[in-house]
Amino acid sequence: MAVQHKFTGHAEYSKGLDGVIACESKIGYVDGDQGWLIYGGIDIEDLAALSNYEESACLALYGRLPTQAELDDFKKKLLAARAVPGEVFDILKKLPKNAHTMAWLRTGFSALGCFVPNIDDFDLKYWTEVGINQIAQMATVAAAVGRIRKGLEPVDPDPSLDHAANFLWMLNGKKPSAEEAKVMDVNLILHLDHEMNASTFTSMSTISSLSDMYSAVVSGIGSLKGPLHGGANEQVIKMLLEIGDPAKAEGYVKDKMAKKQKIMGFGHRVYKAYDPRARILRQYAEKWAKEKGLYYLFESADIVEKTVIEALGKKGIFPNVDFYSGIVYYAMGIETDMFTPIFAVSRIAGWVARNLEYVADNRIFRPRALYTGPLKTDYVPIEQRELVHA
Amino acid sequence: MAVQHKFTGHAEYSKGLDGVIACESKIGYVDGDQGWLIYGGIDIEDLAALSNYEESACLALYGRLPTQAELDDFKKKLLAARAVPGEVFDILKKLPKNAHTMAWLRTGFSALGCFVPNIDDFDLKYWTEVGINQIAQMATVAAAVGRIRKGLEPVDPDPSLDHAANFLWMLNGKKPSAEEAKVMDVNLILHLDHEMNASTFTSMSTISSLSDMYSAVVSGIGSLKGPLHGGANEQVIKMLLEIGDPAKAEGYVKDKMAKKQKIMGFGHRVYKAYDPRARILRQYAEKWAKEKGLYYLFESADIVEKTVIEALGKKGIFPNVDFYSGIVYYAMGIETDMFTPIFAVSRIAGWVARNLEYVADNRIFRPRALYTGPLKTDYVPIEQRELVHA
Repeated sequence: MAVQHKFTGHAEYSKGLDGVIACESKIGYVDGDQGWLIYGGIDIEDLAALSNYEESACLALYGRLPTQAELDDFKKKLLAARAVPGEVFDILKKLPKNAHTMAWLRTGFSALGCFVPNIDDFDLKYWTEVGINQIAQMATVAAAVGRIRKGLEPVDPDPSLDHAANFLWMLNGKKPSAEEAKVMDVNLILHLDHEMNASTFTSMSTISSLSDMYSAVVSGIGSLKGPLHGGANEQVIKMLLEIGDPAKAEGYVKDKMAKKQKIMGFGHRVYKAYDPRARILRQYAEKWAKEKGLYYLFESADIVEKTVIEALGKKGIFPNVDFYSGIVYYAMGIETDMFTPIFAVSRIAGWVARNLEYVADNRIFRPRALYTGPLKTDYVPIEQRELVHA
Repeated sequence: MAVQHKFTGHAEYSKGLDGVIACESKIGYVDGDQGWLIYGGIDIEDLAALSNYEESACLALYGRLPTQAELDDFKKKLLAARAVPGEVFDILKKLPKNAHTMAWLRTGFSALGCFVPNIDDFDLKYWTEVGINQIAQMATVAAAVGRIRKGLEPVDPDPSLDHAANFLWMLNGKKPSAEEAKVMDVNLILHLDHEMNASTFTSMSTISSLSDMYSAVVSGIGSLKGPLHGGANEQVIKMLLEIGDPAKAEGYVKDKMAKKQKIMGFGHRVYKAYDPRARILRQYAEKWAKEKGLYYLFESADIVEKTVIEALGKKGIFPNVDFYSGIVYYAMGIETDMFTPIFAVSRIAGWVARNLEYVADNRIFRPRALYTGPLKTDYVPIEQRELVHA
């Protein structure tokens, strides 16, 4: 009888799990063909215009917008969770200043998880409380990362400020203007959730062994760090600063395209139309660049966008969320290496919401690999092995 | 024209990515129907009998067994990478003693990554060097976790000892006997790789954004921590200790089964036959339990196994690797909360090998979710929202 080996040979499969369904979810949906993003049924454009981060986080967590009483209660929980143990800052102070800010954040959040009691046994109610706390804590730890790596002391949270404003306060040690707080709030809303993006999926993959909420978030941070994911917005502003003069933008892009090099901030696995988040951020980028005397950055971005769309728009290549967020942050005076930690300050709510949704009806992620190696090889004693290396 | 929404509604999909192919690989293969595990074509039984951890790690990394010169070179690299910066220990000393050992390991390894220079830009050659270092470092950090949480100082690595023996030395501060070193070495070989298990898959998902090798390993640690994955071996020994008297084992198991409760250490997503690793470890468990005056634990395990197989063997439920590893570790005097960190000390080579294989021909993991929520909901102002909560 011939031995049947499944998962060997060269079968068809979808690389990068492209198009594979990982789970069911009510949290949010991306229609990439139409360039449409919703959280719990509500259009991202409405949320960016009318909502705020706390409310949008409730929408992701509970599937509907909160009443005033519910929102007040949620905000009270966030307020209470803003302070983290001082040991977390002590630990951050021991890290080398030149390490990646996301490696700092990963380490700080991992350490924080060690101080939270009784998190290791799955309990959906308690894990939900823990998850809400994590939304507040991410802002605190990210702000501390921004300060400690520059030799500054962390700033205590200000209970009079909402989430976005308090984050800017903890990061800069300076009260933000209402406008600054608003634009940060919009940024946090826009990055809150994006379905099965790599960091959310990695976070869910971690929680699916019923590990704990901190292990899951730490994995999300690690994934988001990558230049193919959250690290992209930092690369975009570096590109725009490198271009410098808008007159050079078209040539820069055409040269890159001719060399088949990737232009950061363009194209997306799911979106084959204009990313709605980029459309919203573009307006803020234009306004803020103008106000801060950095209009040349927006002009360059605009030319880069036109040039890329003209060449590649028919292939579904458009600006993604990372393309304009960088200009906004830069114009706000935020250092480029804090762009990706700010992404985490927003995305934490998506990670938490989707992790809780998944563990409520959990099955461990355990796919297969297609084995393309040899099937039966003898163990040859070391003295009989021949050197076949090049 | 009707709007088409892909990925909405209630389509068929495979929960937990069961049977989904995530990638191609030459590293190792599990045939779950036959109960067969190979690394690079070589049967795990041969490797457990004839090989050692360093050589098996080479097999995973390079796809073939090393020549003597290659093995010497590989061992030299591991030796050179055993010491980690003292700050990593300082950071561990700041963590609360009652935190989960895997949360300690996750934090220590994340901190360690901050001290390694220039790891953030993808470079396969450098990342390979980094990965080999990580194999050595995992043993050092895990041993330090085992000591520092008990208020003991870490023990410096001993260059005269091979990997498994040196790990026991760093953990216990006592030279292991040749027999102890051998059984640890076998354990490390058996846990080295297991195809797309949750922690390896989570680690690969992290590296697929081109984050860095430490982010990827930290994610793997977080995933392995879960009781549905690496945490299971600790649960098995707790169960055997709880049973206590072998005369109670059958009743204990039947009671659990009658209540439809999970019996730890049985069943596996892939294996529907006897796990070959459990077969090998069973022999060691019997021998060690007898020698250490703990034969009652093995007797209980034997009755539990027989009772479960009699009831559920026809459904493909057999002991898995976690069922007998715990007895071996316990008989060696290793504390139960170090069982899962030891799993990481072994699996690190699988994580590293598969991460390197994946990034060499990378595509970011970005699946989809099936959206089952509402598609178009108006944003209702807060004062008009009604309380619909129960």
